Amino acid sequence: MNADILKERSGASFDVEKLTNILDDGTEKTKRRREIESLVFSDEDFKEQDPNFLSRSERYDQAVRKSAQMILKIRDYGISDPEEIYYYKRCVHPDRPEPLDLHLGMFLPTLLNQATPEQMDLFFMPAWNLHIIGTYAQTEMGHGTHLRGLETTATYDPSTQEFVLNSPTVTSIKWWPGGLGKTSNHAIVLAQLYTLGKCHGLHAFVVPIRDMNTHEPLPGILVGDIGPKFGFHEVDNGYLRLDNVRIPRDNMLMKYAKVEPNGTYVKPPSAKLTYGTMVFIRSMIVGESARALSKACTIAIRYSAVRHQSEIRPGEPEPQILDYQTQQYKLFPLLAEAYAFLFVGQYMGQTYNRINGDINQGDFSELPELHALSAGLKAFTTWAANSGIEVCRMSCGGHGYSRSSALPDIYVNFTPTCTYEGENTVMMLQTARYLVKSYRQAKEGRQLSGMVSYLNEAETQRVQAQPVSARPTVVDVNDLSSLVEIYKLRAATLIEMAVKSIQQELQHRKSQEDAWNNSSIDLVRASDAHCHYVVVKLFTNKLREVSDTSIHSVLSTLALLYALHGITKNSGDFLQAELLSVPQMLQISLRIKELLAQLRPNAVALVDAFDINDRKLNSCLGRYDGNVYEHMFEWARRSPLNATEVHESFHKYLKPLRAKL
Amino acid sequence: MNADILKERSGASFDVEKLTNILDDGTEKTKRRREIESLVFSDEDFKEQDPNFLSRSERYDQAVRKSAQMILKIRDYGISDPEEIYYYKRCVHPDRPEPLDLHLGMFLPTLLNQATPEQMDLFFMPAWNLHIIGTYAQTEMGHGTHLRGLETTATYDPSTQEFVLNSPTVTSIKWWPGGLGKTSNHAIVLAQLYTLGKCHGLHAFVVPIRDMNTHEPLPGILVGDIGPKFGFHEVDNGYLRLDNVRIPRDNMLMKYAKVEPNGTYVKPPSAKLTYGTMVFIRSMIVGESARALSKACTIAIRYSAVRHQSEIRPGEPEPQILDYQTQQYKLFPLLAEAYAFLFVGQYMGQTYNRINGDINQGDFSELPELHALSAGLKAFTTWAANSGIEVCRMSCGGHGYSRSSALPDIYVNFTPTCTYEGENTVMMLQTARYLVKSYRQAKEGRQLSGMVSYLNEAETQRVQAQPVSARPTVVDVNDLSSLVEIYKLRAATLIEMAVKSIQQELQHRKSQEDAWNNSSIDLVRASDAHCHYVVVKLFTNKLREVSDTSIHSVLSTLALLYALHGITKNSGDFLQAELLSVPQMLQISLRIKELLAQLRPNAVALVDAFDINDRKLNSCLGRYDGNVYEHMFEWARRSPLNATEVHESFHKYLKPLRAKL
Repeated sequence: MNADILKERSGASFDVEKLTNILDDGTEKTKRRREIESLVFSDEDFKEQDPNFLSRSERYDQAVRKSAQMILKIRDYGISDPEEIYYYKRCVHPDRPEPLDLHLGMFLPTLLNQATPEQMDLFFMPAWNLHIIGTYAQTEMGHGTHLRGLETTATYDPSTQEFVLNSPTVTSIKWWPGGLGKTSNHAIVLAQLYTLGKCHGLHAFVVPIRDMNTHEPLPGILVGDIGPKFGFHEVDNGYLRLDNVRIPRDNMLMKYAKVEPNGTYVKPPSAKLTYGTMVFIRSMIVGESARALSKACTIAIRYSAVRHQSEIRPGEPEPQILDYQTQQYKLFPLLAEAYAFLFVGQYMGQTYNRINGDINQGDFSELPELHALSAGLKAFTTWAANSGIEVCRMSCGGHGYSRSSALPDIYVNFTPTCTYEGENTVMMLQTARYLVKSYRQAKEGRQLSGMVSYLNEAETQRVQAQPVSARPTVVDVNDLSSLVEIYKLRAATLIEMAVKSIQQELQHRKSQEDAWNNSSIDLVRASDAHCHYVVVKLFTNKLREVSDTSIHSVLSTLALLYALHGITKNSGDFLQAELLSVPQMLQISLRIKELLAQLRPNAVALVDAFDINDRKLNSCLGRYDGNVYEHMFEWARRSPLNATEVHESFHKYLKPLRAKL
Repeated sequence: MNADILKERSGASFDVEKLTNILDDGTEKTKRRREIESLVFSDEDFKEQDPNFLSRSERYDQAVRKSAQMILKIRDYGISDPEEIYYYKRCVHPDRPEPLDLHLGMFLPTLLNQATPEQMDLFFMPAWNLHIIGTYAQTEMGHGTHLRGLETTATYDPSTQEFVLNSPTVTSIKWWPGGLGKTSNHAIVLAQLYTLGKCHGLHAFVVPIRDMNTHEPLPGILVGDIGPKFGFHEVDNGYLRLDNVRIPRDNMLMKYAKVEPNGTYVKPPSAKLTYGTMVFIRSMIVGESARALSKACTIAIRYSAVRHQSEIRPGEPEPQILDYQTQQYKLFPLLAEAYAFLFVGQYMGQTYNRINGDINQGDFSELPELHALSAGLKAFTTWAANSGIEVCRMSCGGHGYSRSSALPDIYVNFTPTCTYEGENTVMMLQTARYLVKSYRQAKEGRQLSGMVSYLNEAETQRVQAQPVSARPTVVDVNDLSSLVEIYKLRAATLIEMAVKSIQQELQHRKSQEDAWNNSSIDLVRASDAHCHYVVVKLFTNKLREVSDTSIHSVLSTLALLYALHGITKNSGDFLQAELLSVPQMLQISLRIKELLAQLRPNAVALVDAFDINDRKLNSCLGRYDGNVYEHMFEWARRSPLNATEVHESFHKYLKPLRAKL
């Protein structure tokens, strides 16, 4: 164990294990999580070659091997709780996406939700036993977020009782689905349904794409891998072009909408039923943001405790770089943010479960709020974590660029969350739509519930973009509930400003749609402020549940840092709305420096509490024992370019060159 | 040619070619640049396989092949102007670093600067003819920016008249030098010189590391590649461990400092002489920031003109995504920034040449200002371009993640500029040191020159962090010189705040060093504001040189957008210093929206003016002809995973799995 990191641990003011239990949501869960880790990490079958040393094809091959073993073992061990399966998978492929992700996460669940009992017999059990391997083909080359724009067609032919599927244009080629390129032999294809000469919009069709025996593409099918990407090297994201591909009528998923044998179309009873999955996935992504940022913070903070560089006082030994105020200012607000997002993730999980229970009882009343919240928080947390990971990476100096640090991989595998499951700007605008609607309802005197209920208060308090006289300054910058209050008022102000922008555009004879587009900068800003308020509020609420005083104390410091740092980064908003005065702003800057110094002795313990196993972290810089340099050196020596002392290019190019000069 | 992009081009209000000439700094230079491009791009010898489809070893191999050919051709064609050589190289390896970078850019120049005439005979000509291939080994595993911390030793042994080189610890292993791993047979090693029992600090030694004939490592040398990184796949960044390696006395570069045969050390006459190279490289990086951001903007803006998605008005066809206000708000400020940085890059080049002329005349007076400016602007522009490239990438939706977009590669090859040649935070603090010194000199009534001369004015105007009474509001937010003025006052205010923080810390009985560290957040902020002012000022100055009215008009719009956008992103600073009022801030937000709409018709023409050849851009999304989808599809089909229809993993793992379930 490295001496510096040992010293850091001995200086912590709280019991790390107890904080880990809080993050896991209970002692039992910590225990069970570690049991699963140990199952995977002690399993010789899951040993792998460092993917950084492999070609793309070898990476894919290794991932398929591990996924196949994973399926067997999960069944052997009888792991059946979805959360536990998910965690087992995250250990087998340490936080890397893998080729069967869409089979397990989209193909099987879609069958469960949308197949008739007959179709379940036909498709589900074969898929459960990996005879059918499927993916979910929605996105097309020219069409993403806007589903109505999809071009793939499925035309019903009553004479043979078949659907004929086609990709009529280049832009209609299915593009991106994970596992589509090489792994799957079936795809659920989203296509515009045509029957009896009429288009009925998007429906889902089970399309066989490869021969069950030879795995060769079937006639009319052009399928393959879309080529290398920023990350996701293990996944064969694929393309699919359909040329008059005929499938039986039974292959349209008909639990809701139907096409009868004669071609008659029967509408689905309600559209809300497919809504829930999307909300669930977006809620989950909030947790992903927290975990990715936690990993990056763990690496950067442990390394900063081990790394010595430069000097603060002349003549003294080089200090740990964690002693530099600028380094603390880069990392501690991100550490606070990681904690904030972990608690928001917990809240989203609990809320989803509660509301899902209501939905199963037929009560959809809270769904719109959860939909808006999950969209906005998905965008807010992924954007923040995305830039935060890069700050962590760059805070490690040169070594952060080495693949041995794991930071490049954390980034490239995380950054797609900003785009998939709803592009972030589009998500922010969806939340804005809900906020504007709620604002107008509040104006009309309707009582709002949930996270937007402050719009009622705001109305009574007559918050305005620019109060003529300054509000009496009662804000205590050391009091979290006081800070929650001003975050709330900031959000209310920005929502009102966005609404006013729309109104002004309308007064200039713009259409509703143009008015919306011409106000979209303000709308995104308002959503962002709303989400920021929600995060500060939930972090503050969480503190009430913490009884251990030393943990309560350090978490309060983190929460305060999170809230105050967010204010300085958006100080214009708070000054403009006269929520804070200039002297208070200066006071906040000073207070932040004090909080950094206060957190310094607990920084390593706070990342230790994330309890990320070395095998999951997979970082030479972030190792628990702090023995950074020895392991970097050892890692480098194993690099493929070192397999021979002399690279063949010397004999091929460099030596002959001399003769010519 | 894609119809959308054709329409965009026909709508431009200015002559693209004339703007290209301004960016190239003259019609002749545009012409010559295109001649060089055509030399390279029409040359069959430089044809390459898409590196994205190759393994690391194949990428390295291909790069060495091209570099060897490049050396021959540059000599054949008699290209001798350094700028032209540099540009030729950037076409051969389209903006990718390559294995001979350090041989050409550091090894040869260091010999030129620091070798004696005898040493030139010994090393320079063999190196010029690629018999000696060298690198520059400074950074160690445990030591980067802080040179005094380097641990490698070179101990003089008078009995044999040799130096004995050693890497005494793991942290002292040389780490990162480009071309060290596999390519070089020599290295200039920076080591602590010991002679007659005394340490004389860092000196440079020419160390043979591989056999000139077999290329095998020499005795006592452990050398290899440091393994895969975020980018730089073509470069064999290497490690070097020295174990009692003996080199002749002649191998210490002795143009300045010397060790006599008996071991007597002779000091160098001045330390300033090595200062210039560093300043030169940092100045050059400003131009790199501009070019990287220009490429990213070219790709994102052309793609946004071609991509149709979603709807603004119901029932109408899907609009070009460039019509969304949020998309314009992401991209146009970055486009303005790219122009700003191009002009700042031009200024830095001219200033360097001017001051370098003075230095050759023995006049060092302007060097400290240039040193401070190049450090700060290196950090300011690389940070901004770094995050800007990622905004561009994510503005392209899913396709921005594909390697075919080129955006991932632009990012990974650019982001190291934030760390190398001086870590950015350290750079900002170096600039801050100069600013604080200048501030104190101004306080003492000394007349400052150059970019910091405003500190004299500020002193006379008694700028304070919080003026008791608000300054009379005379700022015209549509007038660039008025905006330059408030950027200047913001910088002055923040410098004063940083100085006050230091003073307050000193009053709390802190040492000078602790006071500096405890104020470093404020110091970085002050440097950032100073650099921001310089950029706005230089952009504004540039407009005076532009005579063409239509180009002047569009560049003025860009400059105004750059300045106003920077204000809204830092609105707290301007409000806190009472440089702008709340109503002005609202006015600025509205004005920005108008500017976005104003720039919309010229957006594609403005990126066309960067005139980045398709072969250099190498992006399916950013192609000049706008035929995005066809080329993405074609690219994907060539991907190695599509070499066979069925991947072997199916037979190895997936088919056998069925039998077991």
